Amino acid sequence: MKASGLVVEYNPFHNGHLFHVQQAKKISSADCIIAVMSGSFLQRGEPAIIDKFHRTKTALASGVDIVLELPYAYAVQSSELFAKGAIHTLQKIGVDSLCFGSESGNISDFITSYNTLKEKNETFKRILKKSLNDGYSFPEASKEAYRTIGLTTNSLDLSKPNNILGFSYVKTILDADLTIRPLTIKRIKSDYHDQEINGKIASATSIRKQLLNKQNFTADKISISMPKATLNQLHKYKDNTGIWHDWEKYFHLVYYRVLTMTPEELASIYGIDEGIEHRIIKSVKNATSLNDWIKTIKTKRYTWTRIQRMFVHILTNTKKEELQMIKKLSSVPYIRLLGITKTGRAYLNSKKKEIDIPIISSLKKNLHPLLKIEERATNAYYSIFSPEIRKKLHAQELQAPIILNNS
Amino acid sequence: MKASGLVVEYNPFHNGHLFHVQQAKKISSADCIIAVMSGSFLQRGEPAIIDKFHRTKTALASGVDIVLELPYAYAVQSSELFAKGAIHTLQKIGVDSLCFGSESGNISDFITSYNTLKEKNETFKRILKKSLNDGYSFPEASKEAYRTIGLTTNSLDLSKPNNILGFSYVKTILDADLTIRPLTIKRIKSDYHDQEINGKIASATSIRKQLLNKQNFTADKISISMPKATLNQLHKYKDNTGIWHDWEKYFHLVYYRVLTMTPEELASIYGIDEGIEHRIIKSVKNATSLNDWIKTIKTKRYTWTRIQRMFVHILTNTKKEELQMIKKLSSVPYIRLLGITKTGRAYLNSKKKEIDIPIISSLKKNLHPLLKIEERATNAYYSIFSPEIRKKLHAQELQAPIILNNS
Repeated sequence: MKASGLVVEYNPFHNGHLFHVQQAKKISSADCIIAVMSGSFLQRGEPAIIDKFHRTKTALASGVDIVLELPYAYAVQSSELFAKGAIHTLQKIGVDSLCFGSESGNISDFITSYNTLKEKNETFKRILKKSLNDGYSFPEASKEAYRTIGLTTNSLDLSKPNNILGFSYVKTILDADLTIRPLTIKRIKSDYHDQEINGKIASATSIRKQLLNKQNFTADKISISMPKATLNQLHKYKDNTGIWHDWEKYFHLVYYRVLTMTPEELASIYGIDEGIEHRIIKSVKNATSLNDWIKTIKTKRYTWTRIQRMFVHILTNTKKEELQMIKKLSSVPYIRLLGITKTGRAYLNSKKKEIDIPIISSLKKNLHPLLKIEERATNAYYSIFSPEIRKKLHAQELQAPIILNNS
Repeated sequence: MKASGLVVEYNPFHNGHLFHVQQAKKISSADCIIAVMSGSFLQRGEPAIIDKFHRTKTALASGVDIVLELPYAYAVQSSELFAKGAIHTLQKIGVDSLCFGSESGNISDFITSYNTLKEKNETFKRILKKSLNDGYSFPEASKEAYRTIGLTTNSLDLSKPNNILGFSYVKTILDADLTIRPLTIKRIKSDYHDQEINGKIASATSIRKQLLNKQNFTADKISISMPKATLNQLHKYKDNTGIWHDWEKYFHLVYYRVLTMTPEELASIYGIDEGIEHRIIKSVKNATSLNDWIKTIKTKRYTWTRIQRMFVHILTNTKKEELQMIKKLSSVPYIRLLGITKTGRAYLNSKKKEIDIPIISSLKKNLHPLLKIEERATNAYYSIFSPEIRKKLHAQELQAPIILNNS
C-alpha cells in the first residue's frame, strides 16, 4: 500500500482542506492519506478552536485515513523546526510522497530554489546575519536574504507564507536525503467557487473570525464553506464545553502567571530571549487583554507570531532546557496516533515491521519527555474549563486513537 | 512616648479586637498602640477576606495608631517564624510592651513555662523528634513533647491555639533578650456580652463564615459584632471589587498552576517536602474544589493548615531558595508602614533616631528581596480580578501609608 502525507492544523477543517485531501490522493496515486496535525496549540502560537480529538474526527470523516499528532515541541515553532517534526514523522510512518499546498503550485520551483540556496548559502547566511543584527525579525531578515540570492523574484516567491512552509518541507527532505517524493498543489483562493466540492472556499482565519463572533452560524455562509462533519464536531464541542477556544480566554491565566514570576524565571521559558522578559513584566501592569498586551511588546524584531509563541510557552510553562533535546535528535522519537480508519489500519499493518520507533496511542505511564510536555500542554489547553469538563475532555488522551470504520 | 505592640490579622476587625486594643492601652499605660498585621495571606494559609489596606483602615478607626505589615515571608509560616517576624518588627519600632490575648491570661504562666522548657530542653527535643519520626504532625508532636515535660497539664496549657502563639512570642523575646515587656489578657469567648464595647463578641471565623454565605448582612447579628468602621470597609471593598475573598476563588489558579508544573518544579516551592509533590500532582486530576483537594492530600503528618500554607506558596510561586534568607537573619530587614494616625506620627517622630532599619511606606523601586516577594503575593491576591480592578487596587501599594488625622 502507498501513502501520501499532509502537514495540517485543521483549525477547523474546511472545503479548502477537503480539496487538498482529494487532490493529494489524485496526484500521488496513494491508497492512504496520512495527516500530521498540530495538537492543542498551533504553529502561529494560538490555541486550536476545538481540541485535537474533535479535529481528528473532522479529518477522518473527510478522507484522511491516519491522523498523527505533531508533538507540541515541534508544533509551536518557527517553520524550520515545525517542518523537521512533521516531515520526519511522515518519513517514519513510511509515506511515499508529501503533498502540500502552496501559492506557487509548481514543485520544480521548490527544487530549483533549494539548489540555488545551497549554492549561494554563504551569501544567504551573511545577509541573514546582517539583517538580524540590524534589528529585523527573522521572517523579514530571511526575506531580505532570499531576495539577495534571487529567490524572491525569480523561481519561487519566498515572501508568501505557504511557499515558505513548503520550502521548509522540501529543504528538510533534501537535507536529510529522505525517500519522500515532494508534490505540491496550487492553493485555491478564498471565494473561489469549486463545483467539485459543492461549496465555497473560505480561509480558516475568516471562518474562525466568524465563528468566534457569532452565536449561531449554521444557517449562514460559514456552513457552506466546510463539510458537515466539521459543523457537527464544532457544535458537539460547544455543546459539551460551552465555548470555542480563542486566545483571550487564556488571558487571565497568562496574566496571573506573569504577575507571579520573577524575571529570571520568565527568562527560563522557551523563546524568551535577549531580555524581552523585562518588556513582558513591565507591560503586564497595564495589560487589559492579550491583544493589547502583545501590541505593547511588539517591535520590529519581535513579530506578533513570535510573541504569541512565547505566550503559549508561558501558558504551558515550557522551559528552554526541556526543548534542548529536539535540536539534538536527528528524527522524531515516537509516532502519536490520534485517529485511524479501516484503510489506515490496513496500511499500518502492512508497514508495521518497517516502523522503528514506538507508535503511541494513549498517554499512560512512563511517558517520553516530549509526551510529558504534550500532556502539560493539553492540561493548559483545558484548564479554562471547570474540573468536571476538563476531566471528561482529558479522558480522551487515554482513550485515543479515534477509530472510524469506513469501508 | 510609650508604645505597646499587638500581633494581629484583623480578618476582619471585630469587637474582640476592639476589646484587645482597649485593654492593651489600659494595662500597658502606653500612649500609642502599634499593630503588626499579616498582609494579603494569613498565618493559617488563607487569603484575607479584604485586602490589607482596607483592614488597615478598620484598625486605625478603632484605636490602633500604627499598622505595620508582617512580611509575607514570616506571615504564612508556623508559629515560630511568624513570632520571629512579628516580635522583631515590634522591637525595631521600639515598643515598650507586647500585649497578646491568650486562653491563660496569666503572663507568669508563660515565663514559668519558658524556664521549664529551657531546663528540660533535651527531653523536649528528644520526644519531639521521636513523635515526628512516628509520623505525627508538628503540632501533635509538640503537644506530646510539651506534655512529657509537664507543660500541658501544669502551668500553661500548650494545646490551646492562642497559648501556643503567645508562648512563641514570649520565647522569641526571652531567647533574643529583647527589651519588650510581655503582657497578656484573657481572651473573651464568643457570645460573651460586654457592655463596655456595646456589642457582641463573635469569633473572626464565625463572622467570615456568615459574611461569605450571605448577600446582605448589615441588618443582622454580624453587624453588632464589629465596629461600624469594619462594616463600612467590608461594604466598600465589596462595592469596588464585587467580592470578599475566600480560598475557593483561587482554586482555578492553583489548579491551573499545578496542572502545568513538573514534580521537580513543585518540589522547589516553599513547604513542599518529603515527596508530597507527588501526592499533590496525583490528586489534582480529580480535584473539583480546594476543599476536596486538601481532603485527599491530608494525612496524620500533614495538617490542613500546613497544606493550606503549601497552597498559598504555590499560588504566590514562592520558592524555597527565596525564603532561605529569613532563617539566617537575626532580625527583620525593614519596617513596612501600612497606616498611621496623628498619635502614631508623633510617636514615630520621637523614635526616629533610634530606628536603625529602613521604614518603607510604598513599594517603589529597588525593593528588598522580601518586598519583591510581598509584591508578588499581592499580585497573586488580586489576580482573580479583572485587570481594571486589579490595577486600581494595586495602586494602593504605591499610595501607602494610609493616614488618619485623629485628634
